[in-house]
Amino acid sequence: MSALARSPLITLITDFGLQDPYVGILRSRILQRAPDIALIDLSHAIQPFQPEQAGYWLYCCQPQFPSGTVHVAVVDPGVGGAREILVMRAAEQLFVAPDNGLLGLIAQSARNAVSYRVAPAALASLGLSVESATFHGRDILGPLAAELAMRHVSPEQLGPEHSPAPGVLHPPQLLADGSLLGTVAVVDHFGNLLTTIAAQQMAQRSSVRLFPAASPLARVRTYAQAPAGQCVALINSAGMLEIAAREESAAALLNVGAGQAVYVSER
Amino acid sequence: MSALARSPLITLITDFGLQDPYVGILRSRILQRAPDIALIDLSHAIQPFQPEQAGYWLYCCQPQFPSGTVHVAVVDPGVGGAREILVMRAAEQLFVAPDNGLLGLIAQSARNAVSYRVAPAALASLGLSVESATFHGRDILGPLAAELAMRHVSPEQLGPEHSPAPGVLHPPQLLADGSLLGTVAVVDHFGNLLTTIAAQQMAQRSSVRLFPAASPLARVRTYAQAPAGQCVALINSAGMLEIAAREESAAALLNVGAGQAVYVSER
Amino acid sequence: MSALARSPLITLITDFGLQDPYVGILRSRILQRAPDIALIDLSHAIQPFQPEQAGYWLYCCQPQFPSGTVHVAVVDPGVGGAREILVMRAAEQLFVAPDNGLLGLIAQSARNAVSYRVAPAALASLGLSVESATFHGRDILGPLAAELAMRHVSPEQLGPEHSPAPGVLHPPQLLADGSLLGTVAVVDHFGNLLTTIAAQQMAQRSSVRLFPAASPLARVRTYAQAPAGQCVALINSAGMLEIAAREESAAALLNVGAGQAVYVSER
Repeated sequence: MSALARSPLITLITDFGLQDPYVGILRSRILQRAPDIALIDLSHAIQPFQPEQAGYWLYCCQPQFPSGTVHVAVVDPGVGGAREILVMRAAEQLFVAPDNGLLGLIAQSARNAVSYRVAPAALASLGLSVESATFHGRDILGPLAAELAMRHVSPEQLGPEHSPAPGVLHPPQLLADGSLLGTVAVVDHFGNLLTTIAAQQMAQRSSVRLFPAASPLARVRTYAQAPAGQCVALINSAGMLEIAAREESAAALLNVGAGQAVYVSER
Repeated sequence: MSALARSPLITLITDFGLQDPYVGILRSRILQRAPDIALIDLSHAIQPFQPEQAGYWLYCCQPQFPSGTVHVAVVDPGVGGAREILVMRAAEQLFVAPDNGLLGLIAQSARNAVSYRVAPAALASLGLSVESATFHGRDILGPLAAELAMRHVSPEQLGPEHSPAPGVLHPPQLLADGSLLGTVAVVDHFGNLLTTIAAQQMAQRSSVRLFPAASPLARVRTYAQAPAGQCVALINSAGMLEIAAREESAAALLNVGAGQAVYVSER
Repeated sequence: MSALARSPLITLITDFGLQDPYVGILRSRILQRAPDIALIDLSHAIQPFQPEQAGYWLYCCQPQFPSGTVHVAVVDPGVGGAREILVMRAAEQLFVAPDNGLLGLIAQSARNAVSYRVAPAALASLGLSVESATFHGRDILGPLAAELAMRHVSPEQLGPEHSPAPGVLHPPQLLADGSLLGTVAVVDHFGNLLTTIAAQQMAQRSSVRLFPAASPLARVRTYAQAPAGQCVALINSAGMLEIAAREESAAALLNVGAGQAVYVSER
């Protein structure tokens, strides 16, 4: 089987945790419709009820995945209620998620993102139905991703175009003085502060400050270049501005977390 | 390769945790005997030394898996001692586990469950031997599951029928007044309290109380319907009675955990 | 596809944690170059910045994996700095890791271990380049392991021989009185203390003491044989001397951790 002939990857990002069998059940349902697919876990440790964190990671990770990848995101506190399920096409990949802000940042950032609201009739024609009011990831989002990955259906066939709800995360804001105002979107396992500001958006702006506070952070290229005990700013492997420390948690050193404003200016 | 021709799934549920390489070693041994099998992790975070929690999850999850699935459960504080290893057939699936109460709930609940005690001679004929006194999951249970999944051996060929030891979890008890007495079996990642009471066992009984306490819990269909800060009862995605709260931990709100009695009555 | 025809396993051991998508990104990059490979996670919970813990686990786990397995180890605080990347062949398996002490214990312990320093020209000829100063696991180590597993390149072609840097863990030391001095290398999920002393190195030495303290620990064969509340010494499933307790954490009972000296003598 050549690499080209393979069916695309499916990635999973949820707030299920790894303590319980919920991820395994989701995988079982996907594999029953796409038996030979490669399933990749991005994270199952999204803060429960924070769909935008999943959206941020998808925004950062998407360039690492090949065309045709289908991403399934289930952070879904409104499960069983009125919220819609969306399939978005962006950057030649597909994103399946509830319409609760999760897809807002990608929709605002990606060129040519188009989203479709999944209609009940389309689900029925795929043999999908809501078996439980509390686990649409298992009943709908996972199996739908399998059908999309197997090319048994295309996003256009699922329902009408629909603009994803914006979430609490947005692309950075250009201020009147020419500086950019962004946000710490997530704190990772190492305590690094990952921001919404991409390297190419910084342009000539080299001065990175927490807002409203403080003196600019030293700019480095690698973690090892950070002076001991001092927080620094660098461009991380996703091409995003990150605030880090050397073998320490920047979040702990600065006592800040997700939501913290970050300010980037020419000097 | 068609979906039908594929070898069955193997699922894993253990108390190994994900910190150490024990799960990876188990997977390696299984893949050496069943190279193309799909392995699905249900949980590796079972409370150490609580085999019944693994059994409860298997009881809840089993309907989500296709016929022929082989489940490997390793919560085995008595490893290397006198406890037997069992293979149980129930609901057209197989369960491989130590005989320490883990399989009690499924054996009591499933129609047509039959269990076999694995005899040393059968292991020897499969080239399996105890290499270590402390890791039979690696030496026996995992590879045996691989041989069963590949249909190189059937449960009947492994040894005599054997009734699984009951554990601390049982099907709900019918009381003299017509009500049901069940138990909180596990607390999940979200703090939901998962009980031993199945939806179909509740019949006309709509009043859910913690026992011996308190007023009945409000019944809802979805998490989003729960009033803020209030615990509710719902039927979860496994078809089991669950006590939950909206974007909060019911376990923390009620200050109860596994073992808590739950009482269901007509009013 | 027969077991023999299959491409070898790749294992992953990192300090990435499972909270963030870093492992998923690494897997994606490997699968893009080795689409049908089986990837096995050994651990992603290595203490950040403790490369020797990853090396210890590889030393213990390696006998459980088939010939040809490629192990990728990424605990890499010096990423983007001057440290080299090595490929080591030992026991008919390959190890891809930064040269920061991670491979020291295996290099000192395995017969016929040979290591090669990966030259930039070799990477370029495989189409590999450093895209980020902070994630060489993604850019180099993972894809290189894929190329090795697919036999598109052999270790000898990657660069000159190079002796791995020793780390803080060493094989046990023979003292003047004939006793052995080893170290607790890691504390596992159960609180077991795993040492650097292999069963075959103990020979006639049956008395196990923490150093400099205390009376010898009782020797048992299985965890279940340990008297309640008492720490014991046993040979674990990796053939290593381990200090454990019955359904309790030996680390907590003894209040010791990694780095603790362990002393083995004839009496």
